[in-house]
Amino acid sequence: MSKRVAFLGPSGTYTEEAAILHDPDADHIDYPSLPDVVAAVDSGEVDEAVGPIENSIAGSINDIVDSLIGAQNARITGEILLPIDVCLIAPPGTSLASIKRVRSKAEALGQCRKFLSTHLPDAVLEPFDSTAGAAASLADEDGSVAALGPRRAAELSGMAVLQSSIQDRKNNVTRFVVIGREPPERTGVDKTSIVFDFDREDAPGLVYAALKPFADLGINLTKIESRPTGAKIGVYYFLLDFDGHPEDKNVSGALTELQRHTAMFKVLGSYPRAKLPQA
Amino acid sequence: MSKRVAFLGPSGTYTEEAAILHDPDADHIDYPSLPDVVAAVDSGEVDEAVGPIENSIAGSINDIVDSLIGAQNARITGEILLPIDVCLIAPPGTSLASIKRVRSKAEALGQCRKFLSTHLPDAVLEPFDSTAGAAASLADEDGSVAALGPRRAAELSGMAVLQSSIQDRKNNVTRFVVIGREPPERTGVDKTSIVFDFDREDAPGLVYAALKPFADLGINLTKIESRPTGAKIGVYYFLLDFDGHPEDKNVSGALTELQRHTAMFKVLGSYPRAKLPQA
Repeated sequence: MSKRVAFLGPSGTYTEEAAILHDPDADHIDYPSLPDVVAAVDSGEVDEAVGPIENSIAGSINDIVDSLIGAQNARITGEILLPIDVCLIAPPGTSLASIKRVRSKAEALGQCRKFLSTHLPDAVLEPFDSTAGAAASLADEDGSVAALGPRRAAELSGMAVLQSSIQDRKNNVTRFVVIGREPPERTGVDKTSIVFDFDREDAPGLVYAALKPFADLGINLTKIESRPTGAKIGVYYFLLDFDGHPEDKNVSGALTELQRHTAMFKVLGSYPRAKLPQA
Repeated sequence: MSKRVAFLGPSGTYTEEAAILHDPDADHIDYPSLPDVVAAVDSGEVDEAVGPIENSIAGSINDIVDSLIGAQNARITGEILLPIDVCLIAPPGTSLASIKRVRSKAEALGQCRKFLSTHLPDAVLEPFDSTAGAAASLADEDGSVAALGPRRAAELSGMAVLQSSIQDRKNNVTRFVVIGREPPERTGVDKTSIVFDFDREDAPGLVYAALKPFADLGINLTKIESRPTGAKIGVYYFLLDFDGHPEDKNVSGALTELQRHTAMFKVLGSYPRAKLPQA
């Protein structure tokens, strides 16, 4: 039986592209939300899942982290870096001049502002709930409507890519994480993601004290973020990504020291560090 | 002439509610994006603007910060805390039993999952581009369709609020910032927001060293965040909010010390600390 890999649907999104990149031979199953994706791994309904966690322009996407905090078995087992390449999608044979309307997620329309104002200055922009839905909807239109989205959306909807990489900022990369149940083995080039909070709020120096063991032991932090807990504004938990693995002596020392200061503490996962795929 | 206050449109959103709360007598002018909102203040086209910067559940909304980094005159001059109260909106006289479809932004549908599964388990959920648009669209439907959104959206569309505060998590608060050009005077109960980066990447201890002066001088950090720069993944700048004002001696000392470590450094604004409005 094939491995079952969940992803945030619908089909035809960048997340599906990442899930296919992660494991081309798996059955890829779409779920309606990131909490559902994590729950499917946690319960054993699927073997793995892929979901977005950070975009180089838009910033963090924290639904996965929020779900992992409460999970029993699900953990981060890998990461995937995917360049976000926005395509102009239309029925095969459509000319740029015939396009009167362009539809996509509001974010994608905003990411391609320069292309649209240069090449389609008179086109009406129509915000749509998903890039995949926008591409699929073209089947019901004449050739005067185009969509913006991933190549995968064009493939699934039987449409053509008129032009690729039309986003304003070329360095648009999304970081996805792989969620699984079994911790991967240490490779020597690993990253670890942790979350913690303090039992006091508003105390000067708490964050500083928490970071001291990492600085003292020469551990490189790759991400730090305070996140509102939802309990009340101004009460935060902290997310930290750093280079290393809990089996490394300096990492294990830093984590032990850190836990002298924290109330809640959880390792979200240790996993091999990703490289950008070669273009 | 009335003061002109820009907000992220469309009308009928929580952001318009915050803009009205900030200055009920101003002309409130909707803009299509947060970068446009900041640019309107920066150029003098409007006097002030209001935009979301952080939600207690969803996390940071960083478009405003990204725009302020490049702004000449625009700065943060205030903050507003607004409880996000999601309403079930339908034509006046609609009964719960007659509702077959519910439409809203996907985020709002997700925030009200418990209410929907308890009270409207058979309703079809329809993702919509904005809560305001969802409420406005009800005018074209029979009484079998409802929307989720702010009270303001019901008012503007001539619809009724069937039930208020239906979100799963009651402590759902959004923090908005006021953008202006003139720095407000020190009140003694102030917050300051800064952004900075380093000229080296991946160096252990940089963040720790940057936070030391704040710990040493007893300054309470209220938020810390690393943000991808968009240049490449893994290259970050840092956002810090803390209690105090650059005219306070300890704050001025910490900022001077901090700048010994940073490459880019900018004060985004100092402003009176907000309290939650009384219910």
